Amino acid sequence: MSNMENRRIILNARPVGVPGAEFFSIDTAPVDDLSAGQFLIKNMYLSVDPAMRGWANDAPNYSPPVPVGDVMRAFAVGEIVASENLDYAVGELVAGVFGWQRFAISDGSNIMRRIACDDLSPTLALGVLGLNGITAYFGLLDVCNPQSGETVIVSTSAGAVGSCVGQIAKIQGCKAVGITGGPEKIALCLNEFGYDAAIDYKNASDINAEISAACPDGVNCYFDNTCGPISDAVFEHLALGARITVCGTASLQEWETIPQGPRIHRQLMVNRARMTGFLVLDYNARYMEAVDQLAIWVRSGQISSREHILDGMDHAPGAIEMLYRGENTGKLLIKVD
Amino acid sequence: MSNMENRRIILNARPVGVPGAEFFSIDTAPVDDLSAGQFLIKNMYLSVDPAMRGWANDAPNYSPPVPVGDVMRAFAVGEIVASENLDYAVGELVAGVFGWQRFAISDGSNIMRRIACDDLSPTLALGVLGLNGITAYFGLLDVCNPQSGETVIVSTSAGAVGSCVGQIAKIQGCKAVGITGGPEKIALCLNEFGYDAAIDYKNASDINAEISAACPDGVNCYFDNTCGPISDAVFEHLALGARITVCGTASLQEWETIPQGPRIHRQLMVNRARMTGFLVLDYNARYMEAVDQLAIWVRSGQISSREHILDGMDHAPGAIEMLYRGENTGKLLIKVD
Repeated sequence: MSNMENRRIILNARPVGVPGAEFFSIDTAPVDDLSAGQFLIKNMYLSVDPAMRGWANDAPNYSPPVPVGDVMRAFAVGEIVASENLDYAVGELVAGVFGWQRFAISDGSNIMRRIACDDLSPTLALGVLGLNGITAYFGLLDVCNPQSGETVIVSTSAGAVGSCVGQIAKIQGCKAVGITGGPEKIALCLNEFGYDAAIDYKNASDINAEISAACPDGVNCYFDNTCGPISDAVFEHLALGARITVCGTASLQEWETIPQGPRIHRQLMVNRARMTGFLVLDYNARYMEAVDQLAIWVRSGQISSREHILDGMDHAPGAIEMLYRGENTGKLLIKVD
Repeated sequence: MSNMENRRIILNARPVGVPGAEFFSIDTAPVDDLSAGQFLIKNMYLSVDPAMRGWANDAPNYSPPVPVGDVMRAFAVGEIVASENLDYAVGELVAGVFGWQRFAISDGSNIMRRIACDDLSPTLALGVLGLNGITAYFGLLDVCNPQSGETVIVSTSAGAVGSCVGQIAKIQGCKAVGITGGPEKIALCLNEFGYDAAIDYKNASDINAEISAACPDGVNCYFDNTCGPISDAVFEHLALGARITVCGTASLQEWETIPQGPRIHRQLMVNRARMTGFLVLDYNARYMEAVDQLAIWVRSGQISSREHILDGMDHAPGAIEMLYRGENTGKLLIKVD
């Protein structure tokens, strides 16, 4: 293996909040030899996910922070190119936490799932058939439990998770209302993702009035990816018995000092609403249940997804910032060169 | 009936926030004649409840505001002294929404329950065997679902609801931690209500450190009656999978402008915690399930309760303010003179 060159994106300083390109460097390194039980993955596509902000920061979170000097933690899909593990064969495609690098050595513990070589693109395993779709699936169906005829509102509604939430809501017979930024994403929500209404938070003269018009009977389910002013507006329109999935806080630049906002206790109380923090990793044992159903919907055309592919690892250092600025249209991926 | 004089506490102006004595006046009026289906209740005790702030205010709430000029809405217990209703006999004791007045005419629709003439005081039907106890019962057991060995923390822990929550938590095999104000209430929590620890928020030098010491494994269940800085501190100590019942917002002086505070989305998310607004009225069909169990615990001595009885209706106008200042020890009642 020593003749193979790895290319790696290194976290070289500890950011607070969204890490810009200056927090990363690119280096090359030889690929280590495999020990017994290990196998070598050649990454094809690297994922860019909101959770990477948390992994880079040194704040209470789901996972320990990425050590400064290490390869940036990330999801990826790749092909097994060498193996000392009988369970993983050369030529298999796999998705998992392989890091922002060209080559990754695995013992199987960081594998999320194997990818069937079928009609569907392996990149989908990082998006609608990966954690994004699984997040949408369980975060909406399991936590919010939407009923036919109810109104479901989604923030970052054109994003990798949000677009899937809206389409699952429609499949469940709900009215789906999206909140996103800019006319291009509004058009995507309405024309490609099937939302009944979409609100442009960047250009709304009165977001409260727009939510009110789109949700005349109130909001039964809110899939919250943003927190911040968008959530504050949605909370003014909760229906009795509303369910809120707290899936992300994209609008908060940092949380080392906890940001201030309206206290929501009274809105929860008056509406007997339920607000639940959600982490897809808790559903680990049930991933394939979601993937199998999502694949059916993708094949039938009931779920559509977009990918935004950056060509080459040189784009990686600025990619998290790009994601938080909302400049991507569709699941943000990096094609490994 | 026209020879009987009613004495009434009238809401004579619309308050914002906690209504002081100046928002009420006391008058006398003749008692109307009964129509078919009606009966006359002579109130024995009037209740003073945190919810009365909401009833007096003109803000979104569970119930329409009490019209200015009307008798203040309130729970009470009384005896039926005349009846044109075959279902309600003279001599029966009843609890319900009879208002802050000496006499109330009912058609049965405002009856909460009949009170058995047994060994237990009828005043308990306004406290531990009334909505306070029922609130504690369902708000803790149904919403938080505490498990043996878990830590349950309660704000306003010496109050009519809170003291009952703590004792039910102990019966469930939990560690019960109270938060209350002042040494007298701390002593009540520890010596009478069986809390394992009690934190004096008025005199704590560092409430965070005290919560941390009392809840080394974090807070599994939080029964929140206060919102505000007390809740902010508790939220710093949530355990994974914590459940929060939002039952009251006693620490907020008013909510016509929504008060600001730390955004809690991230704490809910990281801990996969669930926060649920609770209103006891939703459990209307199950009240007697709670009352029957609570009466067993009261008789066995497993649940103790305190009453703070003000002697005479002249005390009523200032009673809500007194409650919100936390000056009562035990369920606040007014004995009708």
